[in-house]
Amino acid sequence: MIGGSIARSLRDKKVCENIIGIDACADTLAIALNEQLVDEAYASVEDCPLSPNVVIVCVPVSVISQVFAQCRDWFAECEAITDVGSTKQSVIDDLQTLMTELPANFVPAHPIAGRELSGVQAAVSGLFDHKKVILTPTLNTAPNSLMCVTQMWQEIGAQVEYMNADSHDQILAATSHLPHVLAYALVHCLANQTQTPEIFRYAAGGFSDFTRIASSDPALWRDICMANQAPLVEAIEGFETTLKQLREDIQNQEGDALQKMFEQAKIARDKFTQ
Amino acid sequence: MIGGSIARSLRDKKVCENIIGIDACADTLAIALNEQLVDEAYASVEDCPLSPNVVIVCVPVSVISQVFAQCRDWFAECEAITDVGSTKQSVIDDLQTLMTELPANFVPAHPIAGRELSGVQAAVSGLFDHKKVILTPTLNTAPNSLMCVTQMWQEIGAQVEYMNADSHDQILAATSHLPHVLAYALVHCLANQTQTPEIFRYAAGGFSDFTRIASSDPALWRDICMANQAPLVEAIEGFETTLKQLREDIQNQEGDALQKMFEQAKIARDKFTQ
Repeated sequence: MIGGSIARSLRDKKVCENIIGIDACADTLAIALNEQLVDEAYASVEDCPLSPNVVIVCVPVSVISQVFAQCRDWFAECEAITDVGSTKQSVIDDLQTLMTELPANFVPAHPIAGRELSGVQAAVSGLFDHKKVILTPTLNTAPNSLMCVTQMWQEIGAQVEYMNADSHDQILAATSHLPHVLAYALVHCLANQTQTPEIFRYAAGGFSDFTRIASSDPALWRDICMANQAPLVEAIEGFETTLKQLREDIQNQEGDALQKMFEQAKIARDKFTQ
Repeated sequence: MIGGSIARSLRDKKVCENIIGIDACADTLAIALNEQLVDEAYASVEDCPLSPNVVIVCVPVSVISQVFAQCRDWFAECEAITDVGSTKQSVIDDLQTLMTELPANFVPAHPIAGRELSGVQAAVSGLFDHKKVILTPTLNTAPNSLMCVTQMWQEIGAQVEYMNADSHDQILAATSHLPHVLAYALVHCLANQTQTPEIFRYAAGGFSDFTRIASSDPALWRDICMANQAPLVEAIEGFETTLKQLREDIQNQEGDALQKMFEQAKIARDKFTQ
């Protein structure tokens, strides 16, 4: 979905001349060729006869090290190799384990854009318009590679920002990974109650919005949880403390404390949406 | 918002001849008259010269007993008195405390429809189209009063269902009150971290959807939490157990358990949206 959306956006904005798609799945390649997302398609890196200028690795973080291993030669040749993984320190660690030294052309990246749909058939042009893309360059990242990846994202409409991988992982644990975990937990919790058919029958719009992200790809989110373990566990523990306080306020009928907490949350949320 | 939306819907569907609005707030009455939501407007029940056929009490559950006390005469006269409170047992208990016996014309009701906006200016016609309205008649509710309220809701597009007040309160605790508590808790939790400005800067669409309900009226939700205490606390405790399990699976890198949980949640959620 992300890889296809990048290809479609690059195509629509005429950013590059030749787009090569590489995927182990023949159906994915057929769709990508048929929809003109790519000019050429190969089943593996070693089948690809060309050495590309820029490589964008769009796979779940759990298999990224396998793909990096296949791209080993390109780390010596390309202008830039980048990724779209939802966690950044784990991706950098994987590459560090593989290579003796982190390559100068590697630019870790994470576009803050997504859909709950998966697969190349869910690719859309313009997915990254006005969306943030966070680049987390390593100490070894070369300025020209960083500039190359920055320009690519800007040309397909994204706003590029820079931070270190640790900050990225902490912030995303709070704003993205934690909400996903909560949405999965809520739906799982309700789906295992005796009244389940009744419960879902009477769920309204608020519930639907709240749980939309629980329709996301389970394997992808398993991997994100595993890869960003420490910051995510810390974020969950912080949430557990807040929720326990809230439950106790309800149990003790502490109306003023409840209202104060809800008001602070509403102010913060309204400010965020402005 | 709910009262105004009922008035506007009744008007648009030509369900009744004369709509009387009663509100302590002069601005609300002025808007309601100006927008022709009501034909007549009074500042209090005792100012109202007519005895209405049907009375719809649209106030937060925390002040409903005060309004019931003002309507005491109408409980002896009207065809039906109904409400729109988000909790039902507390409303019935309040009326029971006030009257020696529950009146035959009282029909407890809860439309499962809402907006995160409040006030008469947020009233919209058609808010209840294809939405469920749960009626929780008491043992004393007269069939003609139940039929009257049922027909009113059906004529403005709603689907009427019946259940007892306890079941209603348990189901709504799970599908509505718990998600609101979680959304408030998440935003409150993030808003109190040292990195807060950063955190909200990088929040994406999933976060926005997930926390939309944290923009709801704090006083209203304080009251709902207080009124539906026991079922809500039980729902929160169930969620805490699920979340603790999930956190431990992440801590222990139990990838299979995580994936299984996420898959079950996705299946349940996808089924719900079908």
